[in-house]
Amino acid sequence: MRPVAVVGIGKTAFGAFPDRDLRGLTVEAARKCLENGHIAPSRVEAFYLGNFAGPAFAGQSHLAPFIAASMGIVDVPATRFEAACASGGSAFFHAVSAVAAGIYDLVLVAGVEKMTSQPTPKVAEILASAGDLGGEIRVGGTFPALFAMIARRHMHEYGTTREQLASVAVKNHSNGAKNPLAHMRKVITLEQALAGKPVADPLTVYDCSLVSDGAAAVLLAPLDRAAEFTDKAVRILGIAQTSDHLALEDKADITTFPAIRRAAEKAYRMAGVTPDDIEFAEVHDCFTIAEIVAIEDLGFVKKGEGGPYSAAGCTRLDGPKPVNASGGLKSKGHPVGATGVGQICDVALQIRGEAGDLQLSRHALGLAQNLGGSGATGVVTILGAAA
Amino acid sequence: MRPVAVVGIGKTAFGAFPDRDLRGLTVEAARKCLENGHIAPSRVEAFYLGNFAGPAFAGQSHLAPFIAASMGIVDVPATRFEAACASGGSAFFHAVSAVAAGIYDLVLVAGVEKMTSQPTPKVAEILASAGDLGGEIRVGGTFPALFAMIARRHMHEYGTTREQLASVAVKNHSNGAKNPLAHMRKVITLEQALAGKPVADPLTVYDCSLVSDGAAAVLLAPLDRAAEFTDKAVRILGIAQTSDHLALEDKADITTFPAIRRAAEKAYRMAGVTPDDIEFAEVHDCFTIAEIVAIEDLGFVKKGEGGPYSAAGCTRLDGPKPVNASGGLKSKGHPVGATGVGQICDVALQIRGEAGDLQLSRHALGLAQNLGGSGATGVVTILGAAA
Repeated sequence: MRPVAVVGIGKTAFGAFPDRDLRGLTVEAARKCLENGHIAPSRVEAFYLGNFAGPAFAGQSHLAPFIAASMGIVDVPATRFEAACASGGSAFFHAVSAVAAGIYDLVLVAGVEKMTSQPTPKVAEILASAGDLGGEIRVGGTFPALFAMIARRHMHEYGTTREQLASVAVKNHSNGAKNPLAHMRKVITLEQALAGKPVADPLTVYDCSLVSDGAAAVLLAPLDRAAEFTDKAVRILGIAQTSDHLALEDKADITTFPAIRRAAEKAYRMAGVTPDDIEFAEVHDCFTIAEIVAIEDLGFVKKGEGGPYSAAGCTRLDGPKPVNASGGLKSKGHPVGATGVGQICDVALQIRGEAGDLQLSRHALGLAQNLGGSGATGVVTILGAAA
Repeated sequence: MRPVAVVGIGKTAFGAFPDRDLRGLTVEAARKCLENGHIAPSRVEAFYLGNFAGPAFAGQSHLAPFIAASMGIVDVPATRFEAACASGGSAFFHAVSAVAAGIYDLVLVAGVEKMTSQPTPKVAEILASAGDLGGEIRVGGTFPALFAMIARRHMHEYGTTREQLASVAVKNHSNGAKNPLAHMRKVITLEQALAGKPVADPLTVYDCSLVSDGAAAVLLAPLDRAAEFTDKAVRILGIAQTSDHLALEDKADITTFPAIRRAAEKAYRMAGVTPDDIEFAEVHDCFTIAEIVAIEDLGFVKKGEGGPYSAAGCTRLDGPKPVNASGGLKSKGHPVGATGVGQICDVALQIRGEAGDLQLSRHALGLAQNLGGSGATGVVTILGAAA
């Protein structure tokens, strides 16, 4: 396997865009990405698209050639990858693997979701399809309910508090307010977060990520060709995708995601680094409790210490281990299929020193973690400066 | 790239199975396949699932880990691939590429669709999502209508007749009647085919493939390890997936599919064979006209000669170039996501000499062709005996 680099990145803003469609959003991100990597669409050798539910949200299937052909990309493998909320991460994983193995040199990966055109009950129904429909979903276990159970159990096992959950929301809103592409650029106080409208106890509206439209794209190339496209190549040091059961009832312990733990182990081993070496991370905070579980599963802290660590400010921009400097899914937004690819863009922006008001002081080694459903798919990527 | 072999195959019957679900069908095919390759599920290193519209037909997304975990396959990349009617072929293409490149050794590929639980108008609506929803579909261009236009144009350009189209149906029904796993095991006459109820002129009900439930699976391994699993390994000699525009209006000539032509060129080049060398083929006869266009695009006959060639019996079991010995989508059935993987199983059965009443006399070199929508995705695979 040869080293692979991200040589171009592109994102749309995340938000509610009633006048934009699925294809238009993807094409915007993809064009920005190809311009960033200084290549024409006709040079793309394969197109990997992460999309969770375009058919359900917008009626359109067969999205990869539909989008690619509209940009002038034809005669190449153009394929949609679906792995629930990890659809973008899964498309990225498969694309990186293909370039690493020498199947292609120049690969375009995009992720997209257009969610806000559906009414809220329909959005909830579509999102619930990522869980076990005949099991937990049938008895009311929508994702807020499932993550509320995870939070409740985490509180019971480890003494995690509502204030600690709320501290994650406060931090991510504070970061997102400085991100020009974020969906909700609004600073909130701990008091506001605690007083949020209940969604599924103990989670309030401030513990839940957003329903968003948006797209993100990255261009991949072998590291030894990266200089043809950019002087700011970002190297993929480690990456893994793993799987687990869909339903919480099939798991021995609902306060941890084995798919993330094992993907992280593999990615760390591939990169030859430890959790302590990671300088910053973008993690999958679909709910505040998910960020706390993520920093535990990634080994940033011991099991059960995610809450106190967050509440102590350790994951803030100025903390020892900044998490979700971009604002995370909570504030930046969560257009499902775009999320995993967007995280790679955000980590790359930091490594390239282009993160603007969000630029971290230590930004040479970053990690992205993308979670599907309540843990059936996990993708972990470790990125670093190429030089 | 190293040589790759199919070392296990498994299929369910194709048909209407009101009591079966998406997961149960896939697990049946996958278990048969793993037993055929003599390996335990825990040895599978990656799971590739072709599925067009499980979320729309059955409400369930995130299907790959959902199905894999229920068989005891966890901690591996488990991913759903969607490329309309070429979803199975696309999953297979990506899996073969990954084994060829040395990413994995033992990979399970499955394809599945469960269609008959929805009423016909809903099935038509879901299938239409593989076309350009905002364009041709919006103005009534469902797939029967689109392929009727292709047929009409083929008749205009090349003098193709309704009798020639009907001859494809007669042949495929005759073959399917001998296939114990076929959906519609019914011999029809040319007169019956011509007198079929009109669907979209000039296509009658006998020109259209079936709405089916079913699943298929294949196990892949590097050729140099094939003997560990089977003494009947089938080698993948050439394979390609390519893309094109979704809408017919964006194509210069609607009587040919460039994605198929170019995938075939690449696959022939990779295999080092010519169309004349191919002894038999499974092609994507979603409509009778599609089989005629396929044998032209694959180079079995010159452009425009597909109709007379078919009517002359050249593609029958006893003809010089048997096509769809299995009965094809027309008679065997077309559970969309399963189709591309099922074709690989059917070609492998012939090469292994296990095709029963359908066994061909010349069966050493076969081809499978899987089409997405009205030609936006094309996958062509050439398979041969491993020895």
